[in-house]
Amino acid sequence: MKLTCMQEDLKRGLAAVGHAVAGKSTLPVLANILLATDEGRLKLTATNLEVGINRWISATITRDGAVAVPAKLLTDVVGGLPNDKVTLSLDQKTQTLRVECGRFVSNIKGVDADEFPSLPTVSAQTPLVSLPAEVWQEAIDQVAFAAATDESRPILTGVLVRTRDQQVTLVAADGFRLAMRTIQLSAPVAHAVDCLIPARTLSELARIIGDTDAEVAMVYTPGGSHVLFHTENIEVVSRLIEGRFPDFERIIPQQYLTRMVLDNSELAKAVKLASFFAGSSQNVVKLKIEPASELAPGRVVISANAAELGDNTSELDGSVTGEGGVIALNVRFLADAIAAVHSNQIAFEMQSAQSPAVFKPVGQDGYIHIVMPMSMR
Amino acid sequence: MKLTCMQEDLKRGLAAVGHAVAGKSTLPVLANILLATDEGRLKLTATNLEVGINRWISATITRDGAVAVPAKLLTDVVGGLPNDKVTLSLDQKTQTLRVECGRFVSNIKGVDADEFPSLPTVSAQTPLVSLPAEVWQEAIDQVAFAAATDESRPILTGVLVRTRDQQVTLVAADGFRLAMRTIQLSAPVAHAVDCLIPARTLSELARIIGDTDAEVAMVYTPGGSHVLFHTENIEVVSRLIEGRFPDFERIIPQQYLTRMVLDNSELAKAVKLASFFAGSSQNVVKLKIEPASELAPGRVVISANAAELGDNTSELDGSVTGEGGVIALNVRFLADAIAAVHSNQIAFEMQSAQSPAVFKPVGQDGYIHIVMPMSMR
Repeated sequence: MKLTCMQEDLKRGLAAVGHAVAGKSTLPVLANILLATDEGRLKLTATNLEVGINRWISATITRDGAVAVPAKLLTDVVGGLPNDKVTLSLDQKTQTLRVECGRFVSNIKGVDADEFPSLPTVSAQTPLVSLPAEVWQEAIDQVAFAAATDESRPILTGVLVRTRDQQVTLVAADGFRLAMRTIQLSAPVAHAVDCLIPARTLSELARIIGDTDAEVAMVYTPGGSHVLFHTENIEVVSRLIEGRFPDFERIIPQQYLTRMVLDNSELAKAVKLASFFAGSSQNVVKLKIEPASELAPGRVVISANAAELGDNTSELDGSVTGEGGVIALNVRFLADAIAAVHSNQIAFEMQSAQSPAVFKPVGQDGYIHIVMPMSMR
Repeated sequence: MKLTCMQEDLKRGLAAVGHAVAGKSTLPVLANILLATDEGRLKLTATNLEVGINRWISATITRDGAVAVPAKLLTDVVGGLPNDKVTLSLDQKTQTLRVECGRFVSNIKGVDADEFPSLPTVSAQTPLVSLPAEVWQEAIDQVAFAAATDESRPILTGVLVRTRDQQVTLVAADGFRLAMRTIQLSAPVAHAVDCLIPARTLSELARIIGDTDAEVAMVYTPGGSHVLFHTENIEVVSRLIEGRFPDFERIIPQQYLTRMVLDNSELAKAVKLASFFAGSSQNVVKLKIEPASELAPGRVVISANAAELGDNTSELDGSVTGEGGVIALNVRFLADAIAAVHSNQIAFEMQSAQSPAVFKPVGQDGYIHIVMPMSMR
């Protein structure tokens, strides 16, 4: 293998595949990045067996070849070089990769490319659905954090991607909260399917496609074990989680008794202040909604109380429909919900202190976030 | 106690004294910040018994008083408020501080101000020496990192501040390297003294005075146990280390056999690249200096070699005086030395592979950095 490429391209490519490098693995070869010439370009590959990434970069290839090289060292070395032409050449006998940039020369000991596992392939010819990178990113950011992080119920560590007619829905839930984002398409999807993708993988995908403004296609064969997302330069292959996602539609309240619309950033500020006290008090924050009277507009009183530390109260005005009420929520989940609603105004809907609280953007359709209440003390 | 002040002033004040708050201490009250009205201003105080900080901020005082409040909680709460007028009022009976800003209200349980230890006072009337904040900062940044961090030789954890005639000298050494910065004054100092100040304290001082461009005066009574740095709004009191600093002047080489001048940022780049390999090889990096020949300019070859990882070589041109030579240095110490030389060009002087290497800025006097060599393999 011998080729030249630009330092900046190589650096960005390594950063992208770096997300899939296995930190600690029983398979030491996974701490490497596979470099391989591929039809006039350089292909970088990394995988931790849950997710695999291919990233292609422009290169001038003199001799084809491939080698797997320690990811961290290669990334460090390339990051330390000036933004100039870099020559990569492989000493086939010693499997040592020579990285040359001007008068900076590094020799990095690698591993035979054959020892690097190949990524699973997804055979479908046409994408299930294709969306701009930023649409995927926003939807993933709004949903993936609500998935469970502990593995006791593996199904809840996934994000359900459901395609139906002209619609894609992403849903995650951890038993205490649920986030759902719906995206309208301009044409019907190829198949109506349910894919359960590890939330971690989707979050990585959102980061990886951050440096592109291209369309990202999702490819999936019904019944398959893997899903593929790709653009011209990037391929992300993820395993799927087996099993059936809970029937989330039943959880979503169909009505409310009280609804309040208020400024999202003000609410975020009040909840943050409450969190400093709630943190020492099982994360409980109380929301008390009071309808408008003749003398005052509708308002919410947000409060937290920690026996040893003190207490905090914030009042915010907003328009209230219904008769008002009180509910106790986990302050972390509340802060997450507010952050996931990307509109300037946020709608908060509730039925009673024992029923799930609902958060929605105002003036935008397609997002709903539900938080289960805590017991009031 | 009742007063109003601006959120931003309070936030900056808390950040400054926060540097001296004891993280974990046998004296729990030290996790607090003392708030006290003081002649029309609000005084914030924190100490970890090694260093103490007073910081005054503007306030409109309605009722005098004082209370000690948990540092982290108060800093979090104030940081979460909008930049607006903040009212602080103390409930004397419960020692609870009410922090009000618009409709955000927090009550923070505090501790009686009398339980907070008073800072040591330094009695001298006239400052020993007074310098602009940025001069102290640069000198401290160039020197303090070279002090020892382990406590086996307490004297080496300090920075020697020596005043003589029209000169202040800061020196630190850890047995492997030595950094010395000399500052010329426009007038003779009040006393010729040697103060041994904990390096950690000086580094804190550099950070704290970062938000001022005032003169910072150093106050010290010969024979005293503490030293005081102050501006109009800040006082930093530090204990001194007892004992005699090693006779560092004997360590500084008075001559060289080879001297090379080269670009500082290029050298930093090459050393950084070498560090990725040297890290797995006892941090050894080799510098080989070759004088100019008829065909080529003088140059240095910087190399590192790690049996398992590979190796790295960089070549840099520069002007060489003398016959050249080879020396092995600790790559971390080398990188630190280069970073502490603030000129565009750096001078490197050596005698032999067994003698200390010397680094100096070019075109600036007053800084010298010495690194002991490692054995060549």
